[in-house]
Amino acid sequence: MKKRIAILGSTGSIGTQALEVVREQPDRFAVELLTAGRNADLLIEQALAFGPNAVVIGDTAQLARVKDALFPAGIKVYGGEAAIAQAVAMDSIDLVLTALVGFAGLRPTLAAIAAGKPIALANKETLVVAGELVTQAAREKGVNILPVDSEHSAIFQCMVGEWHNPIEKVVLTASGGPFRGRTREQLAGVTKAQALKHPNWDMGAKVTIDSASLMNKGLEAIEARWLFNLEPGQVEIVVHPQSIVHSLVQFRDGSMKAQLGLPDMKLPIQYAMAFPERLRTTWPRFDLARHPALTFEPPDLDTFRNLTLALEAMRRGGNAPCVLNAANEVAVDLFLQDRIGFLEMSDLVEERLAKATFVPRPTLEDLVASDEETRRHARERASIAWNS
Amino acid sequence: MKKRIAILGSTGSIGTQALEVVREQPDRFAVELLTAGRNADLLIEQALAFGPNAVVIGDTAQLARVKDALFPAGIKVYGGEAAIAQAVAMDSIDLVLTALVGFAGLRPTLAAIAAGKPIALANKETLVVAGELVTQAAREKGVNILPVDSEHSAIFQCMVGEWHNPIEKVVLTASGGPFRGRTREQLAGVTKAQALKHPNWDMGAKVTIDSASLMNKGLEAIEARWLFNLEPGQVEIVVHPQSIVHSLVQFRDGSMKAQLGLPDMKLPIQYAMAFPERLRTTWPRFDLARHPALTFEPPDLDTFRNLTLALEAMRRGGNAPCVLNAANEVAVDLFLQDRIGFLEMSDLVEERLAKATFVPRPTLEDLVASDEETRRHARERASIAWNS
Repeated sequence: MKKRIAILGSTGSIGTQALEVVREQPDRFAVELLTAGRNADLLIEQALAFGPNAVVIGDTAQLARVKDALFPAGIKVYGGEAAIAQAVAMDSIDLVLTALVGFAGLRPTLAAIAAGKPIALANKETLVVAGELVTQAAREKGVNILPVDSEHSAIFQCMVGEWHNPIEKVVLTASGGPFRGRTREQLAGVTKAQALKHPNWDMGAKVTIDSASLMNKGLEAIEARWLFNLEPGQVEIVVHPQSIVHSLVQFRDGSMKAQLGLPDMKLPIQYAMAFPERLRTTWPRFDLARHPALTFEPPDLDTFRNLTLALEAMRRGGNAPCVLNAANEVAVDLFLQDRIGFLEMSDLVEERLAKATFVPRPTLEDLVASDEETRRHARERASIAWNS
Repeated sequence: MKKRIAILGSTGSIGTQALEVVREQPDRFAVELLTAGRNADLLIEQALAFGPNAVVIGDTAQLARVKDALFPAGIKVYGGEAAIAQAVAMDSIDLVLTALVGFAGLRPTLAAIAAGKPIALANKETLVVAGELVTQAAREKGVNILPVDSEHSAIFQCMVGEWHNPIEKVVLTASGGPFRGRTREQLAGVTKAQALKHPNWDMGAKVTIDSASLMNKGLEAIEARWLFNLEPGQVEIVVHPQSIVHSLVQFRDGSMKAQLGLPDMKLPIQYAMAFPERLRTTWPRFDLARHPALTFEPPDLDTFRNLTLALEAMRRGGNAPCVLNAANEVAVDLFLQDRIGFLEMSDLVEERLAKATFVPRPTLEDLVASDEETRRHARERASIAWNS
């Protein structure tokens, strides 16, 4: 029987690759629901190709156009963010892939958990911002959260069959991004175009900038903490420029397990979609004996201050990761608009972390408030400092 | 409750390390049976320290002495090879660790399987010689065979939770031994002392010589084939001089999993003894970020002809691996006695493989006959060629 998938954020980088997996494995998967924020054209094209039961377009201004395009194909069309949270609860959905970017992924993920749907989680901010709330809700509902990030998928793959064995630590590998080996002085003048050139991975703009600043690895550390129920001290980060070893687990007997392969997001996407089965693929294989050496080095925490800030927020807990994430989303946005420099992203995040009111055990409402307040203050601060 | 262990070959390298594991984990393990071939002194010492229910000394000439020493401690003492096969069937034994060296491990292993005991298998010759018979017997009895060799333990650790997922291939890593990078000409004159210096692993003499000639990796390939139910073409060998990645599995989706750690046989020994649990240890940990690069290269099949011969025997199947193993045991013995040179070990094995009668589906009796005939011919040939 085919697994019926809901893809939230189908027009983004992860969403389109998830649809490629569906296309390659037509006997295994059917698309039940597609949602997109603003890219109505691609959503229409995807819906006509994959024939979902329903689609949701976040931007209600485009609702009528999407309806007109999909009505003849018998596809139901809804509009607005609230409709996403309703649609994921449909009985016919077997798995919800949340490939939304940023804080916007939180509410639909919670809605899917509440409806008892297994989650393939590609929206790391959900766990960064509300890891405790989300993992607790998943535990209460008995819902699996299957990671799609390559690092967390690697750890998950290593944990299969070992859930009874205590983890000593996890080691998240980081490519180091395009600026590995540079000094702070050299980073001051880097451009958006340089930061968008990732050496190994082809990803969306937000995560590519976060990879260049190593904020991405900090967010992943927080995500790993919640996914694998770890203390902050059990998450280690190692720079591995070849991006072949996708991450490692060390158990309490000292044994380490790693997952390896060529960098290709389709593997972790398909793994989460097909779990616990591995489906046959014809993708290129990694050949150990015909590959340069695999190297590993500690991250440069002085130069890549975003990583230091993220690890600090992880240790503080409460709403600190939410503040970190909101300030960083604003900072990346301003950097992509050429309104602030690369190092000023860290300045903005650091100031917000220092000034925000600390909430030790935030509710969902507290997190929404922290998120909004942090964004407002970050934008205000940025316009005073850099645009006046 | 403590797991009650039988250690066959307790005075060898694996046996003594298994007893160290018992000493470190006194709440988990108790020693029920110890057996040794000739080293009565160490057997007595071990028995007095660990208080097994029974011991067996293979060399019956020493039986009276062992009895005298252990009678006051209330330990039962038996003598002779046949007694080992009887003793492993004792009701009180939960797990049989077969750490005998060479062909001698086969009968006791089959006896333990027939008695329904889970096997921790450190005697690779058992599967090399009689892989089909042994794995079939284990399947029929529903008995687990838990590998103790570090490479096979690595693969087994990667397979936990994945038995339903088809293996595309396994990659056995080889340190390359002390002679990696040498030419055939350079190998002609190497001495026993040089061959006995393994760069990474501390092991018994037979397996250390086999590591230097890469025969060990060939035997492991055959062993892996039977343990993991693979075709010969699914077993790949890669030289990895650092001996940190102990082996890898590639699944049909292209994903690879590896097990890593410092080279220390106690980990795979303890893993097999405690499976499916991993017990806490205080052994030194491997630190990825403070270690030189991990490198991998194809093996030099022209220089290390023993590996080529072993892979050929694996492909031929039948009694070919039995002939290979018997000829190699004689060859290593002669080399350790300084009676033949390093390269002549391959000559002897190659000639036996070429001349032995091929038996496609050998019974246990066929294998015993092949083994004896090969040893006799190999010794005769050696005495004609090199000692006359």
